[in-house]
Formats: sequence, C-alpha cells, structure tokens
Amino acid sequence: MSKTRVLTGITTTGIPHLGNYAGAIRPAIRASEEGQSESFLFLADYHALIKCQEPARVQESVRAIAATWLACGLDPEKVTFYRQTDVPEITELNWVLTTVTAKGLMNRAHAYKAAVQENEENEGADPDRGITMGLFCYPILMAADILMFNGEKIPVGRDQTQHIEMARDIAQRFNYLFGETFTLPEAVIEESSMVLPGLDGRKMSKSYNNTIPLFEGEKKLRKAINKIKTNLLEPGEPKDPDTSAVFSIYSAFASQEQTAAMRQEFANGIAWGEAKKQLFELINDELAPMRETYNTLMDDPAQLDRILQQGAEKARDYATPLMADVRRKVGIGPIAG
Amino acid sequence: MSKTRVLTGITTTGIPHLGNYAGAIRPAIRASEEGQSESFLFLADYHALIKCQEPARVQESVRAIAATWLACGLDPEKVTFYRQTDVPEITELNWVLTTVTAKGLMNRAHAYKAAVQENEENEGADPDRGITMGLFCYPILMAADILMFNGEKIPVGRDQTQHIEMARDIAQRFNYLFGETFTLPEAVIEESSMVLPGLDGRKMSKSYNNTIPLFEGEKKLRKAINKIKTNLLEPGEPKDPDTSAVFSIYSAFASQEQTAAMRQEFANGIAWGEAKKQLFELINDELAPMRETYNTLMDDPAQLDRILQQGAEKARDYATPLMADVRRKVGIGPIAG
Repeated sequence: MSKTRVLTGITTTGIPHLGNYAGAIRPAIRASEEGQSESFLFLADYHALIKCQEPARVQESVRAIAATWLACGLDPEKVTFYRQTDVPEITELNWVLTTVTAKGLMNRAHAYKAAVQENEENEGADPDRGITMGLFCYPILMAADILMFNGEKIPVGRDQTQHIEMARDIAQRFNYLFGETFTLPEAVIEESSMVLPGLDGRKMSKSYNNTIPLFEGEKKLRKAINKIKTNLLEPGEPKDPDTSAVFSIYSAFASQEQTAAMRQEFANGIAWGEAKKQLFELINDELAPMRETYNTLMDDPAQLDRILQQGAEKARDYATPLMADVRRKVGIGPIAG
Repeated sequence: MSKTRVLTGITTTGIPHLGNYAGAIRPAIRASEEGQSESFLFLADYHALIKCQEPARVQESVRAIAATWLACGLDPEKVTFYRQTDVPEITELNWVLTTVTAKGLMNRAHAYKAAVQENEENEGADPDRGITMGLFCYPILMAADILMFNGEKIPVGRDQTQHIEMARDIAQRFNYLFGETFTLPEAVIEESSMVLPGLDGRKMSKSYNNTIPLFEGEKKLRKAINKIKTNLLEPGEPKDPDTSAVFSIYSAFASQEQTAAMRQEFANGIAWGEAKKQLFELINDELAPMRETYNTLMDDPAQLDRILQQGAEKARDYATPLMADVRRKVGIGPIAG
C-alpha cells in the first residue's frame, strides 16, 4: 500500500517563534518520523513575494526557517524538503492552470473579497485599490504547489480550506479538458493543533507582537519568559493553572508527570518568579541542543543551499515527469512527440 | 553602437496563409536580413493555450509556423528564433511580475473589457462569465516575454499598443521597487504593413474563411486563386485594377515593372481566367522553392525541435543572467548570495 502524500508550505516572511515550534514545527517533524505518510514540505518564497517587497526579509526568513526545521530534527532523507523557487516546473504549471481557471472562481476568494470590502468601506475608493495581481492569483499558485506533486492531504487552518477547494476545482477542470492527470487534494483541518499563548495571554503571533523567540539565545529566552503576563497573587497564595499562560506554555513542553507536578505547585502557591524559572529551564533544556545546530546552520548558508537543492532534486523527480505529461496533454511538448 | 533589440511573438493557433506571408513573414525576414536591429522572434505557445484547448491544433501550429518561417528564409544564425515554452525563465518572471502588478491595471485591458461588455449585453449574466484567468492575466505574460529580453521596439498592430504600455507600467513599477532592471519597451505601430485581400475582397483572415493557403501545394494554390471573387466583365472589356483583389494580390508579389504591365493588361481587357493564371504563376514561382524546404522540415519534426532548442539556448543566454538578477533583487536568490 502506498503512503498518503501530505504537502505543507511555509510562507517565508518571518522568523519562527516558540509558538510556531510547538504548534507546527514539532508536530510536523514527529509526524514525519512516524513514517505513516510521505511528507512534502516546502519554503513558499514565491508566495512571500505577494506580501513582502523587502528582499532582505524574504531572504533572511528562508534562511531562518530552513535552519529551524533542520535544527528541530527534520530529516531531509525522510521527507522532501525544498524551496519552491528551486523547482522551475511550479511557475510553468501555474501558467498552464491559469489558462483553465475561471476568473469567477478567483473573484470569490476570501482574501480578495476581504480586501475589496475594506476598500468599499472608504466611500469613493476603487474596490481594487492597492490589490495586486499576486493577491488575486495566489490560489492558482497554491493549486500548482499542490497538484505538481499530486498532494493528497493538505494540512491547513480552517481559514485556508477554500484554497484547497479551489485547487480541487482547477484540477477537475484540467482533468475534464485534457484527461485524468491530477489527484484531487483534500484539506485536513488541524483542529487539534496546539495554540501556544503569547506574552499577553492571547495566541502567540507575530501580528500581536507577543512572541517568545525560539533560537535567539538563552538570555533573550529568559527575558521573554520573565515578561509573560501574570496576576498579582503573592508567593504562597494558590494560583489557577487553567488561566495562566505560564502553566499553559509549561504543559506544552512537559511530560504528563511534570505537568501534574506543576499543577500541584500552582495549588501550593508557587511564586511567579519560581514558576517562570522552571518554565525557562524546561524549555531551554529542550531547545539548547537544537539552538547549537541552528547557529551552525545559520553560519553556513552554503550548506543550507545545498540541503535545499538536494530536496529540490528529489521534488523534481516528481515534478519533471508530471510537467512533461502536462505539456504533452496541452500541446506544448516537443514537436517530434 | 549597439543595435536596437526588436521582439516579435507569433501566437501558435493557426497555419500561416498567404496573407500572413505577405503582411508579416516576408517583411520581418527582410528586415532581419538588413541587420539594422537585433531580432528576437518567438513562437508564443503559452499564449496559444489561452485561446485554444485543442492540443493537436497548438502542436500542429507550432510545427507549421516554425517550418514556414525557416522555409521562407529566416536564418536562425542571424536572429534569435525560439519557442516560448523552451525558456523556463519566462513563467518565473511572469509570476514575479504578477506580484508587482496592480489588479486595477488588468481591469482596464481592452480584451478583458470587451469580453465583460459582451456578457453585460446579456441581461443577468455574470460579467465574468466564460472569462478565464488566462485572458485576464495575459498582459502580464506578454510583459514577461518582452522584459525578459529587455526588448526595446515591439512591432504591433494598433490594437496591441495598450499591452506595450502595460509592459512599460509593470517594468517601471519593478524598477521603482527593486532598482533599475528593465528597459522600458516601445510599441512600433505597423501602419504600413501590407494587408492582402482574401478570396472575397475583404482582408485575408482565418476568421473570414477567405484565405489562400501558403504551402499546401500547387493544386490547392491554383484552386484557391481561381476562387478569387471577380465581376462579370467579359474578356476584352477594360477592368479596374484598383478594385480588383486579383490585381491587388498580384502587385504584392510583382516587381514595379510587372505591376505596371498588369495594369496595362487590365486596361486592355485581360480575361479573368488569364489574369488568375498569371497571378498563380507569379506566386508559385516565388513559393515553389520554399515549399520544398517547408515539406522537408514538416517531415522532420526532430530537426525543428533541434533548431528551436538551439534558439532557446541563445535566448537563455540573456534570460538566465537577467532572471538571476531579478531573483537576487526580490530576495529569492541563493541564501549564500
């Protein structure tokens, strides 16, 4: 029985933080180690260009994300780990799919509609003001990313399911016009993925500016943990673990036994300073060895390029023959056939 | 002094007819022989996919157009003659340009607006009914075709000038965001290009179904010429050359002396059958040697592939370094820089 092919893209516009690690990176790497599925994991730097016109930021993000996943234990032998821009077939497929996609389908994309609505709230503004073709065409590129590898399961947040439906629509249209070619992908909604609270108790997210850094060194880690919002209860006063960001983050890194013990300590009135100290130690113990690998990789960009290139070669083992088939089917293959 | 770079694309959805030969192919080849400019000439088969979802037709058109231009004397040593789909940098640049293009710009494209207007004439229809993203995004691909080679002069019909303006807009936007990169192309409107009348006297065009075949053999050529519409004037009655398709086509292939002599023959009342016979001989004398080359090339598709591949290699000598520069500028180059 062949394994299910799971495909995940990571947009390269930021530097991974602790929330990304606990919510996405660690579970994805664990899943890839279980070997139940065949994982394709890619750095979506063509997508980054839609949101970010600062080359240094895109570049630095690619570097940091690649180094992070590898440092966290992603084994490039076990998964196909590549950078989108190293697979030239993707933009070619993107164009071929563009020619079979109805404009009406793109008109209905949530991200585009939200941008239009925002414009319409300003009276007299052009509904398409400030909207680029990148934003408008993005679901087609995402379809190309998925269909290029006949991805079967696509883990996404609930807000992304529409894109997977669009990829299905586009695949069906192509299959109808030119014969069975693409597997219809399915969204796998990650209901249960862990959401780490940030410094202020809300979901940890770059946009809330409440993140704890992942690999910026012990000092910064300790400093950030010390800033986690707590209440004014004194040492000795019992504390509620279930409303505490400190406890919530602790339990994301602790064993069941450790979590139970900390719950007891909260009941016993552990001082916030002591709880944060234990939290720091727990996290730091997990991260310290990875941090070293991370720093080594960050200092050796040529090595990162090599690893990503090797991944791209594996990816192209699938992409090149599939694209040759697509070319032949639409009529742009070699004349001699 | 460096030569002006002239870039011309030919959409591969049909088989060239006599009107294409006299109006476009022959003058372009003559211009390329004068050596005043550096010619880039390409088969636009990615564009063909927008209009045509019949693979065999796209394929056959590529074959026939390549064989026609070569048979008509295009020297692939003197020009860069390539197939768009053999230059993978083009769809990559297409995506990068997509991310910097305003959607509002595409909303204003004539071809898109005409399609919307047609829909709006049917009450209650979705304005975007039947419109593909290929049609909507086509000006960006055309910009990529041009900017990829820093094309300076783009010979186009008057209806195509908007696309060149859009390519300029997109180039300016990119240059503004990421630094001077692309030459701003200029449209060269071909006012004076010869328009050959078809069998019914209207402009010879596939869409009027009034064409004379170019390389389908003597018999078909003669048969088509015999079908050119004439009036009922008998032999011996003087005929007006200036309203005659026979005379007009004759003069497109004749020397000045031959044209003057035929004008006299019309005044003398030449029989239509005789005029057509002379027209056939004149055209056939010009086409016969080319027809032989055409048939040889059509029978050797591997040879056509080879010639186009060599052209693509020449094209990529420009495209590859330019694309590397673009990648670096937007932040998707190698991490190691």
